[in-house]
Amino acid sequence: MKEAPFLSTKSADSSTERRQFLRRGGLFASGAVLGAAELLPQVANAAGNLPPETPVWTKTQGTGFLNPPYGLPSPFEKNVVRKLPATAAAFPTGSRTPLQNLHGTITPNGLFFERHHAGVPGIDPEAHRLMIHGLVARPLMLTMSDLMRYPSVSRTHFIECSGNGSAEWNKHTGKTAQDIHGLLSCAEWTGVPLSFILDEVGVQAKGKWLLAEGADAAALTRSIPLEKAMEDALLVYAQNGEMLRPEQGYPLRLLLPGFEGNMNIKWLRRLKVGAEPFQTREETSKYTDLMPDGSARQFTFLMEAKSVITSPSGGQKLNQFGFHEISGLAWTGSGLIRRVDVSVDGGKNWREAVLQEPVQKCALTRFRLPWRWRGEAAVLQSRATDETGFVQPTRTQLIDARGKNSNYHYNAIQSWRVGTSGEISNVHV
Amino acid sequence: MKEAPFLSTKSADSSTERRQFLRRGGLFASGAVLGAAELLPQVANAAGNLPPETPVWTKTQGTGFLNPPYGLPSPFEKNVVRKLPATAAAFPTGSRTPLQNLHGTITPNGLFFERHHAGVPGIDPEAHRLMIHGLVARPLMLTMSDLMRYPSVSRTHFIECSGNGSAEWNKHTGKTAQDIHGLLSCAEWTGVPLSFILDEVGVQAKGKWLLAEGADAAALTRSIPLEKAMEDALLVYAQNGEMLRPEQGYPLRLLLPGFEGNMNIKWLRRLKVGAEPFQTREETSKYTDLMPDGSARQFTFLMEAKSVITSPSGGQKLNQFGFHEISGLAWTGSGLIRRVDVSVDGGKNWREAVLQEPVQKCALTRFRLPWRWRGEAAVLQSRATDETGFVQPTRTQLIDARGKNSNYHYNAIQSWRVGTSGEISNVHV
Repeated sequence: MKEAPFLSTKSADSSTERRQFLRRGGLFASGAVLGAAELLPQVANAAGNLPPETPVWTKTQGTGFLNPPYGLPSPFEKNVVRKLPATAAAFPTGSRTPLQNLHGTITPNGLFFERHHAGVPGIDPEAHRLMIHGLVARPLMLTMSDLMRYPSVSRTHFIECSGNGSAEWNKHTGKTAQDIHGLLSCAEWTGVPLSFILDEVGVQAKGKWLLAEGADAAALTRSIPLEKAMEDALLVYAQNGEMLRPEQGYPLRLLLPGFEGNMNIKWLRRLKVGAEPFQTREETSKYTDLMPDGSARQFTFLMEAKSVITSPSGGQKLNQFGFHEISGLAWTGSGLIRRVDVSVDGGKNWREAVLQEPVQKCALTRFRLPWRWRGEAAVLQSRATDETGFVQPTRTQLIDARGKNSNYHYNAIQSWRVGTSGEISNVHV
Repeated sequence: MKEAPFLSTKSADSSTERRQFLRRGGLFASGAVLGAAELLPQVANAAGNLPPETPVWTKTQGTGFLNPPYGLPSPFEKNVVRKLPATAAAFPTGSRTPLQNLHGTITPNGLFFERHHAGVPGIDPEAHRLMIHGLVARPLMLTMSDLMRYPSVSRTHFIECSGNGSAEWNKHTGKTAQDIHGLLSCAEWTGVPLSFILDEVGVQAKGKWLLAEGADAAALTRSIPLEKAMEDALLVYAQNGEMLRPEQGYPLRLLLPGFEGNMNIKWLRRLKVGAEPFQTREETSKYTDLMPDGSARQFTFLMEAKSVITSPSGGQKLNQFGFHEISGLAWTGSGLIRRVDVSVDGGKNWREAVLQEPVQKCALTRFRLPWRWRGEAAVLQSRATDETGFVQPTRTQLIDARGKNSNYHYNAIQSWRVGTSGEISNVHV
C-alpha cells in the first residue's frame, strides 16, 4: 500500500490546492480538527476510475414499482441486516443492529434491534386492550382507538438493552460494532404522554409506582417510578412514521426515555398503580448488577453516557492511506450529549469531535472528526460527556467502581485497534 | 350516534374531573386551544371494553426473529402501502405515500413516494461513477468509495414532486391525503456537501450552472444554479440511517433542500459546470408553469409553503362525537415553518396549532390542535406561514395569480368536508 492521494484514482494531478472545505459551513467550526496542512490532497483527474462502458442500467428500462408496494433495500445491501449474537441459543431472544453500516442517527425500522423473552406475539390491534388500575380513582380499559384519540407527541429517542456490551465485562466475544454495541437503536416515536392517562384515572396519593405488563407469552413485568411516568413517559404506537413493528411492541409499547431497554415494556396491556415496587422476576433475579462485595444493585434504571466509533470499526479495513472521517454515535439517558472527544492513540491525546445538529434529549448523537492515516498502528477511542458533566469511563475506571461480576450497564470507552495493514479489531479480542 | 364520553366505553363513570392535560407539559402551551370546559369528559371505568378472554398471543410462544432478518410491518398494516394514482398508466411512473396513516415527521423508507421517468435501475454500487467536469480546473471521476471518504453531514429534509396536487388545478380526482398530497415524503439524509466537491474540482469564474444527470435509462437532466449547489446541496448516499433505496437513487442522489423533486437527480452520474442553463427537455417542454397569458414560467425551483391535515382527512370517518386531535403536516422550501393555523369552519375562524419540535429547515413539520366534534357539518383547513412571512394561499388566491393552466406547484389550502354522519371528503370531489 503506497501513500495514496486523497481520492482513489489511478492517476493524480500533481497540482494541489488547499482544501476549501475546512473553511466552509459549520462542519469543522467547533472543536480541534486537523490543520489544513494535514489535508493537502493530490487532486485526481477524470482519467481515473473510468467505467468500462455505458452500464446496462442506462441502456434498458428499469423495473416498475409496487413490487412490493412496501419497499425494500437494494439487493446489493443484502448483508446489512440484524444479526444474532455468536452464542445464540436454539430459540434466540435478541438480534442486533448493524451500526457499522448505518449513517446519521435514525435506525430504519427493518434494522431496529430486538429483544424478547417469549418470541414476538402477533397481536390483533382491534382485540388489544390496555388496562390501568390499582391505586386509582377511576380504572380504565382502553382500546387502541380510544388511546389514539388522546393528544400525541413525537420525540426522537434511543433504546438500549441494559445488556448491551455485556460480553465486554469478561468474555470479549464481540468483533464488530454490531456484535458489541448493536442492542441499541434510535427512532422518532409517536404516542400519548402517559401523564395524560394517569390524570384521567386519578392516581391516589399513596400511589408511587406502576407495574407495567406486556401481552406477550412472557407477560414481562417491571416496576416504574411514578415520577418517571409523569415526567416524560410515552404510550407509543408509532415509530419512524408508521405503526410500531411487531418486534417493537405492536400495537403499543411503553417508552421511558433513557431507561434500560427491558423497562420499555412492549405489547403493553396493563399498568397497575401501587405504593411500592412490585419486585417482579425481571427486577430481582434478573436485571440487577452484582457488585464486588456480593450485593446486588437494584433498580439501576438509567443508561449512562456512552459512545462508540462506528466508522472505521471492528471488522472493517482501511484500504488507503490519507484522509478518513472518523464517525460514531454517542448517547446518554441523562438528557443531552454535550461533547465527544476522540483519540487515535489509545487515550493519550484527545480532540473534540463535531456533533451533528440537532442534538436531542436521550437520542443518538452522531459525531465526526477528520483523520489522516499514514499507515501507523493506532487505537481509536471516543469518550462522551453529557449535560450533567458525566464522563464516559475507561474500562479500568468502570471495573474499579463495579468489579467484574456484572452483566449489565457496561458503558466503558471502546478501543478499536488499527493494524499497520489497515485491519481494525476489538483490542480485547 | 349519540354524544359519547371522551373515551369509547360502554359504561362511563358520571364523576368528572377537569382534564389535567391542558395544564401539563408544553403541548398546549402556545396557541389558542380549546378551553378546559370544552374537554370535560366523562371518565370511563374498567367495565368497558373488556377483552373476551386471555388472547392466544399471551398463551403461546411468539415467533422467533430473523425471518426475515430485515424486518417488515405487522400483517395487520398490510393496507398501509404506497399506491398508484387513480389514472396510472400501463407503466406507472409514480407512487404515493399514505400520509393519512403516518405519524410524526419521518417517512419510513418503505413508504417513501417514488417518481421516475424510465423505471428504477438496478445499479451495482461498485460499478457506479460520478463525473464532475465542464468549466472546472480539475475534472474528477469518483467511485462511491471515493465519495464516501469525504466528510459527511446528516440533515432532515422533505422532497415534494412539483406535480403534487396537480389534479386539484382542474380535475379533482383525489379523495385522500395520499391521492392529493402523497408525492411528498421526509427523511434524515446523509451525504457529502456538494460544495466540498466543487472546491475540489475548482469551478472557473464563468461557471454559474450545473447540469445534473442520472444514470437511469431516462438519463434525466436538469440545470442547477451554482449558488444553490454551493449553499446547501448534498450528494446523498443514505436515508434514515441505511443506504438509499433503489427508488430514491441508490447508490447516489442529488439533494437540493426545498427545490422541486425532479431536480433532486437520482442515480446521479454526472455534474457538468456551465455558464448558462442547459435548457434540457425537463426544463423546457416539461416542468414549466403555463400562465394565463400563455407564457411559461421557467426555473420555478422553490416549493413554496404548504400544509395538509392528515388526521382526520379524506376517506376517514369520525365514529364518535367528542374530542379529536386535528393533526397534519406543513413544509416550505424557503426554510422554517413559523406557524400553522387551523379552521374548522372553512376559513372563517382560525386557531394556531402547536408545532412539534424540533422544527427543521425544509423538513416536514407536524402540527396538532385539539377539537371537539358535536356532529355538526364542518370544513377543516390548515394554513402554513413560513419564516419569510409567506402565507399559504387559498385556492381562489392561487388561481387569481396563476390561472388554471398549470400542472405544477399547486400549494393552495386543502379543504376537507366533514359530514354530519362523520364522513370526510375532499370538498372539490
